[in-house]
Amino acid sequence: MRAIVVSRPGGPEVLEWREVPDPRPGPGEVVVEVAAAGVNRADLMQRRGQYPPPPGVSEIPGLECSGVVVAAGTDVEGLAAGDEVCALLAGGGYAEKVAVPWEQVLPVPAGVPLVEAAALPEVACTVWSNVFMTGRLRRGETLLVHGGGSGIGTFAIQLAKAFGSRVVATAGSAEKLDRCRELGADEVINYREEDFAEKVRADVILDIIGAKYLQRNVAALNTGGRLVVIGMQGGSRGELDLGALLARRASVHATALRSRPVPEKGVIVRGVRDNVWPLVAAGAIRPVVHEVVPMAQAARAHRIVESGEHIGKVLLSAVS
Amino acid sequence: MRAIVVSRPGGPEVLEWREVPDPRPGPGEVVVEVAAAGVNRADLMQRRGQYPPPPGVSEIPGLECSGVVVAAGTDVEGLAAGDEVCALLAGGGYAEKVAVPWEQVLPVPAGVPLVEAAALPEVACTVWSNVFMTGRLRRGETLLVHGGGSGIGTFAIQLAKAFGSRVVATAGSAEKLDRCRELGADEVINYREEDFAEKVRADVILDIIGAKYLQRNVAALNTGGRLVVIGMQGGSRGELDLGALLARRASVHATALRSRPVPEKGVIVRGVRDNVWPLVAAGAIRPVVHEVVPMAQAARAHRIVESGEHIGKVLLSAVS
Repeated sequence: MRAIVVSRPGGPEVLEWREVPDPRPGPGEVVVEVAAAGVNRADLMQRRGQYPPPPGVSEIPGLECSGVVVAAGTDVEGLAAGDEVCALLAGGGYAEKVAVPWEQVLPVPAGVPLVEAAALPEVACTVWSNVFMTGRLRRGETLLVHGGGSGIGTFAIQLAKAFGSRVVATAGSAEKLDRCRELGADEVINYREEDFAEKVRADVILDIIGAKYLQRNVAALNTGGRLVVIGMQGGSRGELDLGALLARRASVHATALRSRPVPEKGVIVRGVRDNVWPLVAAGAIRPVVHEVVPMAQAARAHRIVESGEHIGKVLLSAVS
Repeated sequence: MRAIVVSRPGGPEVLEWREVPDPRPGPGEVVVEVAAAGVNRADLMQRRGQYPPPPGVSEIPGLECSGVVVAAGTDVEGLAAGDEVCALLAGGGYAEKVAVPWEQVLPVPAGVPLVEAAALPEVACTVWSNVFMTGRLRRGETLLVHGGGSGIGTFAIQLAKAFGSRVVATAGSAEKLDRCRELGADEVINYREEDFAEKVRADVILDIIGAKYLQRNVAALNTGGRLVVIGMQGGSRGELDLGALLARRASVHATALRSRPVPEKGVIVRGVRDNVWPLVAAGAIRPVVHEVVPMAQAARAHRIVESGEHIGKVLLSAVS
């Protein structure tokens, strides 16, 4: 098969589309013929050599895909050749085929085209596990989403609204803020023009900035609030005012999906299938796809994501 | 009645035992004739003017007491004059009588003398709410308790052992470490001689130090670990390494009991009565009382607690 290989750490130009050995399904795994793969910021970090795959995981980038099951190993439950699926991957999605534990595989929700389904696994599992499982967002509470125009942001806005919460989103352009409103955000804040900590009090904050926002995120928490940090685009070491945290009886959580063991991913994926997929099938939540780029042009897809000007997900199409 | 009044912010000498008006029970309140009150570090801060009572709360110090119900207001459930009780207070315990919402009142556990029962409400509610409700300590997990010789520490060691956890305690003297071992600690660390972060990995950490320990506490967390900060004897502003927190998929919580609304205190108190009191009645957990001082000598009691050389609780006896 062909796949994108990181020939050496570097810029987008190091991504090479070349022939590699086909994956074979291990015990508990299926092989998916990839229709499309989602591009995530973690892939850009991996390309630069800053985010190596966990031990035992493919060196090929790609944390999610959609496609068709073409083979199954032993001990696989509920999947067979021909099934249209999408999947959360620890790596290997930028390829014509990928092997994945069956616990990380989801059906394609009704009404979603196969290629677009590649936009769903990472954002759905990230938002479900962080905002709902870790952050325990409840009906009527306020969610603050930083980066409301990102793949995660666009999904978090829709899912929190579907569950009856109030949503405030930050973004850096009028176009992104308009899109956040269209997706359901009750309030939007241009972080280039206003200080969010002066405008909002939130019960749950989903943060991708890290250190740079730490003090203001804590200041923006309600009593009992939960700050969930899933990215550190603004650095990792910041000052935490424990007095401010204690005055709010609040908490700071930091989590990641990729490093979790398969059974934990399985719990998240089942939660998504049971709680999120029905809302997608009903049309209450839609994948937001900025552009579909042929996989052989992965370098161009990375340049789009690096620019930060896209809204929603950039996908790589593997269909020749 | 007589009570301890903070005549002005200052040292122990500002505590005056003098005549004040009797409290009267408001709706939902009972009046307790105090047998004894517990001394807490928060009382010392209040005496210095650093921890004012919440709005509407008595200026008299004292966050817990034991005694006998002598009067009840309207809408009180399950309590009557003559009942021997102990109670979690927002203030007012250093007195011959105190009014308290009925939700914050607990029976005296079987086998515990009335005076000693004053040593229980704060530590039981603090440990139950922070280690078990917020920290979700589970059987087989490891709890790290800082200040193992304190009232909270001595109770946390016993309760976590009774629930089947492994317990590591830190303290600053051989005598305190010996006592921690007697109470059930599996491992003890003299923080003056060793760096706890190099010796232990914990699932839950109960911390009273704050900023000074923040980095090392995060380093000492297991995957999925929960750091619960309930005191800031080592300062409130510290550097948090979100990368280290994320690598552990861990969380930092900071909470306090006193500022919570009565219904939340009620939930905690019911949890203590249902889950902790049977273990006290069975003798699996005992109050650890360092000394009982007559209430008129509250200044001396504060000097003992300020010295930090006591083990367990210092109580003030109101019985003339």
